Order: sequence, then structure tokens, then C-alpha cells
Amino acid sequence: MEKVITMAHGSGGKTTGELIGAIFANEFDNEILNRMEDAAAVDGSKRIAMTTDSFVVTPLEYPGGDVGRLCICGTVNDLLSRGAIPKYITCGFILEEGLETETLKRIVHSMAETAREANVIIVAGDTKVIEGNGGLYINTAGVGFFDYDREISAEDAKDGDAILVSGTMGEHHATILGSRMSIANDIESDNAPLTDIVGALLKNKVDVHVLRDITRGGLATVLKELAKASESTFVVEDEKIPVSPQVRDFCGLLGLDPYYMGNEGKMVCIVDAKYADKALEIMKASKYGQDAALIGYVQKNEAAEKGMLYSKTSIGGLRNLDILQGEGLPRIC
Amino acid sequence: MEKVITMAHGSGGKTTGELIGAIFANEFDNEILNRMEDAAAVDGSKRIAMTTDSFVVTPLEYPGGDVGRLCICGTVNDLLSRGAIPKYITCGFILEEGLETETLKRIVHSMAETAREANVIIVAGDTKVIEGNGGLYINTAGVGFFDYDREISAEDAKDGDAILVSGTMGEHHATILGSRMSIANDIESDNAPLTDIVGALLKNKVDVHVLRDITRGGLATVLKELAKASESTFVVEDEKIPVSPQVRDFCGLLGLDPYYMGNEGKMVCIVDAKYADKALEIMKASKYGQDAALIGYVQKNEAAEKGMLYSKTSIGGLRNLDILQGEGLPRIC
Repeated sequence: MEKVITMAHGSGGKTTGELIGAIFANEFDNEILNRMEDAAAVDGSKRIAMTTDSFVVTPLEYPGGDVGRLCICGTVNDLLSRGAIPKYITCGFILEEGLETETLKRIVHSMAETAREANVIIVAGDTKVIEGNGGLYINTAGVGFFDYDREISAEDAKDGDAILVSGTMGEHHATILGSRMSIANDIESDNAPLTDIVGALLKNKVDVHVLRDITRGGLATVLKELAKASESTFVVEDEKIPVSPQVRDFCGLLGLDPYYMGNEGKMVCIVDAKYADKALEIMKASKYGQDAALIGYVQKNEAAEKGMLYSKTSIGGLRNLDILQGEGLPRIC
Repeated sequence: MEKVITMAHGSGGKTTGELIGAIFANEFDNEILNRMEDAAAVDGSKRIAMTTDSFVVTPLEYPGGDVGRLCICGTVNDLLSRGAIPKYITCGFILEEGLETETLKRIVHSMAETAREANVIIVAGDTKVIEGNGGLYINTAGVGFFDYDREISAEDAKDGDAILVSGTMGEHHATILGSRMSIANDIESDNAPLTDIVGALLKNKVDVHVLRDITRGGLATVLKELAKASESTFVVEDEKIPVSPQVRDFCGLLGLDPYYMGNEGKMVCIVDAKYADKALEIMKASKYGQDAALIGYVQKNEAAEKGMLYSKTSIGGLRNLDILQGEGLPRIC
């Protein structure tokens, strides 16, 4: 196997076959994928969830993760946001010429490990090569089943509902930005599959109204979108938003707002207020949920303007938050 | 809407929302996608087929098609290769900075038209932006259902089976290469969804053993892979391979072999020999099948070496064909 990827690895002929044999086949070893058909045939379900995401993060490897872990987590968490339990993943690789095969091997290994952790099977793949400087783009698409017969929707927040988040904000954003700026710190990306949290909430019959993973655009963008989708007004409290001291310092240093920082292993969970304590307890006991917090409520006031997001500041003011404007952090995921 | 794509279109915030509203939402208009959830919830089936492909073709637009038409056809044809009827498509867009929004609009329109033609629904999407020079990469993943209760496999060619192709070889390859070399001719890409051909074969209960679309690597690569998968020996006749006069001339000019030229709307179909005439008649009567031909047979000789592909030459010789070696034509799909 050559040390770097060349255009021939995208030919669809002998060299592509060698690449697949040397790097993908071992790591993604399963009966369905191994058949090397044009499409995988798998057991279905009466209702299914489908999603897709492309991952263009740079650097490819960063403290706490890499694009391989990220792409599995992203697709798994999107399926979970509908209350669907992730089952199957397809992956399309676009390799830039010059990518080191050792780097690709590590990333593919990380994908395989994360897929096992999230209990999903990689059933189909594709590899293309383009000119470039050793970059890598991965698309993952996923199928999940509604094992708990619940289809969660962004539109279903109700007046009085409790708003929870599954953990601290901003780790992934701070990690990527820190890596690019070579700022020394001990922040690691939060990239994680949230199967355990969502599975536990649904299994324990918490009356979950909305689930949404908090990625590009950060908590404020996600909450504002959810408030608009459900035609409600959300009020959260600044002091209740979980942010680690390291990320708080990082934000202070660079003038960043944790409300707009991207994450890759955090979820908003909106539940009937009667279930708020139970939901918080379940989240805290779940893998990747130990820092979960109740951060606010859907406004009860019928006369309130719809689709609004407010945060109560620590000195008692009310701040009107919108979705992210402008660039954010390019290629964060 | 700006005239070219900028990094802000990948932010996940306001500018991404504007891009989606201006370009994708109208064209891909359907109830499932319009809900803008993290994942689409759709009706399933007891067995499903899944596939994925990334498309990196250059130029983005070429005679007879564009990357938008191509990406739908590629995923649809991969599902059909298992005997599954394509139902749902997800699409992940990676846009390079500087891509003209008018170009993107035309390509997205072409995707939407091709999806309607192939009777598939685009249920989920994602948009990312990277640095670059106005390029575009699209990943499509698809789900199909086994409406005819048949799961076709590459392994199922039997001794004595008839080998058919659905049309002339090499149009897509010649089109892309001709575009890049600015060779004036009237060849157009064959990119097409083969739903009609496969649907008609299965509906009319033809005993189909193998289906496979003939893309990168060309007919020889596909047939050799199928011969290996089914541990058979295939013998085809050079004179029966359909090649248009224009492509034949193009190949003669550049010293290319039609056996290794990529297509994007052609299929190999291997059937029980008793059904050969019926299959040919059905294919010829189907959309995109008018030039279908019976090109050879799976060898009956038990003693023959397995996994071999031979072509009978016009002067009576026997040529041993392997899969494509080396580069082929980079970024053909």
C-alpha cells in the first residue's frame, strides 16, 4: 500500500480495490458490507428515520476525537433527535490526493470503534479521490427505527415545558479553534454518541416533547429554531447554562459567547415539566450526561410574542437571542 | 442572495438558512423535507436496501447532464442492482467558496427533475462549505424497498445464463473526456435512472439472476467482478457489445477501449437463458433500453477456471479481460 493517496485510488478498478482491502474492509468487517454489493439489503421496520451529514472539519484529528468519530456521532445524534434508535450507517469518503494512508487508517479505525460504541452497523460505502493537499471529507447517512413507537418533532414544545441540556457547552468549538490557533489548554472535544441518554429517557417513559443535538450555531441557534418551530417563547437562565471553567476562560480570552459555540455530543431535551426532575436524574446517570442541567422553561404567557428566545442575565436583565449571524467558526464539523 | 458561495453559507446560522431557502427549499419541495427536522421520518418496509455514493465529476455540467442528474441516477441505479425499487434519497452538499449560485441553482433543479423522473423523494439534506475554487461535491444515499420480493445478488450468476447489457457503452466517459479536451462531437452522457427497465423485468417475472450498473471501470471491470463473485466464467463477444459509431470513432482517435469506459445509465443483466429473448424484448421496450443487446453467456464447462472473463474477438481469438488497472479517467463521476 502506498504511503499517500493518489488519483488511481479513485479509479474504481484494481487500485481502489487494494485501498478498500487494506484500510476499510478489516475495520468495517461485517457480513452485510463484506458482500461488496452495490447496495446493502437489511431488515427494515414499519417506520424509519433517515438523515445525512457531510463532515469537513479541520484539523482531521484534534484533542478528544477526529473526523471519523465525529461523523458517526453526528449522524447517530441526528437520528436520536427524532426519537429513532440508530441502526445502519452508510459512508462516502472523498479523499484528497496526498492524504497519508496512516492518517486514513487511524480515522477509519476511530469510525469503526465509535460505530461499535453507538451500536450501529456500517452497511455501505464509497470512495472517491480529488486533487488537493491531503484533506478528507466524509459523508455519513443513517437509518434508525422507532423502537419506542415515539416520533419526536422540533414542533412539539408546549407552554410550561422544562428545557434541559445534556452537558457543558462549547468543548468541540473551543477544541477546534484552540487547535488552529495553537492555544495550549486541556480542553477536549465532546464528540459522543448520545444513544444512552435518549434510550434511557424513552425507555423510562419520560414525556419527551423535543430532542435536538446542539451542533453548528450553538445552543442559542438551536433553541431559537425550536422556539420558532413550535411557535413558543423560551426563557433560559445564563447562570444555569453549564460551561466548564476551562471553556469559560477560553471564551473570556477570545471574547466568545458560549451560547453560539458548537458542540458534537450535547442535546437539548424539552419535557413536560412534571417529568423535569426524573429526566434530569436519568440524563445525569447516563453515559455523556453527567453534567446535564435544567436551564429554563417554555413561557406560559399566552400573550407573549411567539418564536422568541430570551436569556435571564445574572444581573436580572432579559436578553433577546437570535440565531447565529455571519460566519461562526468555519469547518467546525 | 449573493452571486457566489462564501464560508458564511456553511455557518449553520442565518446565512445557511438563506441559502437553503433560496436554492434548495423550492426545488426539493415535499412535506417530509419541509419539516426541517434533524432526520426525516418515513414509512419503512420489512426489508430495505441502502447505498451511498459521492460525486466529484468535473466539469459540473456537461453535454446531456450535470452532477445533479448524475448523483440521483447513480444512487437509484445502485439500489436497482439489488432488485430494490428506490424510494428515498438523502443529499449532502459540499460547496467550495466561489461556486456561482446560478450554477448551484441549475444543478439543484436538475436533481429535483431527475428525482421526479426516478420517482424518489429527497427526504434529508446537509450543506457544508470549504475553501476552494468554485467546485461542488454531492453525496447521495438512498433507501429502496423490495417491492417484488426479490433480492438480487452479484453472486447469483449460474452456468448457462445469458448476459445482456441495457444499451451502448462509453457515452458518459467520452462526454467527460471530450469536454475536458474540448473535442467537438455530438456525444452526450447517458446518465439516466434505470427504474423502468428493472421494474419491467421484475414485474414480468423474468428470472433475473444478477443486475449491476456499469459505471467507473466500465463493462470489463463489472463483468470480471461479477464472474469472481459468482465463481463462474463469462464469455462475451466483441461484435455484440453495443457501441455507437460516434463513441467508436472517439475511442479510435484516442486509443481507448470501450470495455473500460464508464457509463452512468447502463446495466448488466444476467438471466436464466430460457428468459433471454423475453428479457431483451422487455429491455428494448423500456425507457433507456432501446439499444439493449445479448452479449454472451456464463460458461457451462465445469472444468473451466472460475472467475474469468473472456471476449471472443472479431477474428475468432479469445481475450482474457481483467478489471481496470491504474487510473482510468479521474473524476468521471
